[in-house]
Amino acid sequence: MNIIVDGMGGDKGPKEVVKGCIDAIEELDVGIIIAGKRDIIEGELLKYSFPKDQISIIDADEVISNDEEPTLAIRRKKNSSMVVGMRALAEGKGDGFLSAGSTGALLAGGLFIVRRIKGIERAALTTVYPTTKGISLLLDAGANTDCKPQYLEQFAVMGSIYSEKVLGVKEPKVGLANIGTEEGKGNALAKESYNLIKELDLNFVGNIEARDLPKGLVDVIVCDGFVGNIILKLTEGMAMSIFSLLKDEFSKSLKSKIGALMLKQQLKSFKSRTDYREYGGAPLLGVRQPVFKAHGSSDALAIKNAIRQVKAFVDGDIVNIIDENID
Amino acid sequence: MNIIVDGMGGDKGPKEVVKGCIDAIEELDVGIIIAGKRDIIEGELLKYSFPKDQISIIDADEVISNDEEPTLAIRRKKNSSMVVGMRALAEGKGDGFLSAGSTGALLAGGLFIVRRIKGIERAALTTVYPTTKGISLLLDAGANTDCKPQYLEQFAVMGSIYSEKVLGVKEPKVGLANIGTEEGKGNALAKESYNLIKELDLNFVGNIEARDLPKGLVDVIVCDGFVGNIILKLTEGMAMSIFSLLKDEFSKSLKSKIGALMLKQQLKSFKSRTDYREYGGAPLLGVRQPVFKAHGSSDALAIKNAIRQVKAFVDGDIVNIIDENID
Repeated sequence: MNIIVDGMGGDKGPKEVVKGCIDAIEELDVGIIIAGKRDIIEGELLKYSFPKDQISIIDADEVISNDEEPTLAIRRKKNSSMVVGMRALAEGKGDGFLSAGSTGALLAGGLFIVRRIKGIERAALTTVYPTTKGISLLLDAGANTDCKPQYLEQFAVMGSIYSEKVLGVKEPKVGLANIGTEEGKGNALAKESYNLIKELDLNFVGNIEARDLPKGLVDVIVCDGFVGNIILKLTEGMAMSIFSLLKDEFSKSLKSKIGALMLKQQLKSFKSRTDYREYGGAPLLGVRQPVFKAHGSSDALAIKNAIRQVKAFVDGDIVNIIDENID
Repeated sequence: MNIIVDGMGGDKGPKEVVKGCIDAIEELDVGIIIAGKRDIIEGELLKYSFPKDQISIIDADEVISNDEEPTLAIRRKKNSSMVVGMRALAEGKGDGFLSAGSTGALLAGGLFIVRRIKGIERAALTTVYPTTKGISLLLDAGANTDCKPQYLEQFAVMGSIYSEKVLGVKEPKVGLANIGTEEGKGNALAKESYNLIKELDLNFVGNIEARDLPKGLVDVIVCDGFVGNIILKLTEGMAMSIFSLLKDEFSKSLKSKIGALMLKQQLKSFKSRTDYREYGGAPLLGVRQPVFKAHGSSDALAIKNAIRQVKAFVDGDIVNIIDENID
């Protein structure tokens, strides 16, 4: 299996991406194809010793930045690492694609280069959502800001498949993010989506209120991309704000070094539970080949873990399973 | 000034509501009219000594529960404390109305009994949002699940007025809850609302991402009622979940009683910052007279503080100011 990695994407640049690739071939049974500026990627690779047949480079001398209008960038920057990598995927030169670069460009490339599975209305960015029990899956995480009920219906199907086949959850509990638990609650989209999803052959547990999301009551959270983005970013913002408040509070009275040290350990242990680096990439579900987004701040560990997920996705034959489950 | 209070609303029943009313007349220069079952309210009042001319009762022998369909309940239960109280308000027997009962029934009563200010498209439930800096205001908190851009435009105007006149914020910073900070981000509703709000004579600071909401970067958060409810409940759920996780973590190693005690104090100090009881009620902005919702779990302190807010709302002449600012 060969996984194509965008060598130029991400805030931390090629250094961390390449190190993540090196770590991946050591730990996982995969080959890696890095798309990016050849001299830069080669420079990074020189730092390591590794089996030469497991990593190759496809030259791509442009980079798409986060500031660029995604669709325009994908259309114009034909030699960007993102476009070159995705085109290689579409041409069958690799089995999956991973980038820590512009989310918008990844989505645009997914639609225009890799393209949707026949019958899929919209592809959904699918991410893990940290809970006190572990993780849930959330889709759509922001690819589709305006949705129709049929999109959410398909998100439910795709999310359930991914949860079961890649994350190993048995009969994943699927919930619709809503403002009340009873059937009939919500806005027009939520109400109609509920009616469609409940007819599916899924373990649909109904509506889930935002209050209960952090408790991990469901395995798959279904929502439109606007609400999904609000949920993800508010969860992140609340965690950061509470920690910063607690730090202030504790520093007021915990004078002893021992007390402070103890606290630091506990905070660290807590933070690791919500560490995106452990969970790696977010798949774009509904396209014809495996396309994954890694977090923009990914370090080598995050890249390696994302590659692990791409591999599980390929091994699980998820694209075909989704294809078979969509009318 | 006389404030009408729903004596039967809220999870804690008449006992806490009546105590809150007693505390309010002691602290604030107001008269209170309690709508509810006369024998029950009188029984509670007997526990206290107070100037008899400051509290009176309007008999209402029915109660609307949280399980009832709100509009039907308002139409059918003519003798419920909610309907009797609101009708008294509409007939000019009091200057404002407060209930800790069914939110849906309060909204329905606001629309059908008190009615909207002329020109107001939708009334908005407006609540305080706890931040690390203090509080923001959020509207709509759940009254309108499907909104048009014109509704959000009016929410921005009404929220700004309330923030300035009742909460005392000078030139309140108004932000639109969105999935990116740049103009042009978001779903169709957010994009069109942005264009309308930016033309208003307000201190509009543009889009605010959910990640930044807990930081208190804006004084007024504008959003539709679906998103508003998600934001409020997720904020509450995250705070609860993080505290419960921390409790687990700390109990693992903080064996000394001193350490645990220290922690308890700090947690308490933190929790008080997000205590809805301190902030009291949520106004229904856009109706012809002051209508306030108190939290369902309100105790006497929360009721008293909510009455304080109703008073400030009446003193500030908010209804007329909103009326003057809507075309």
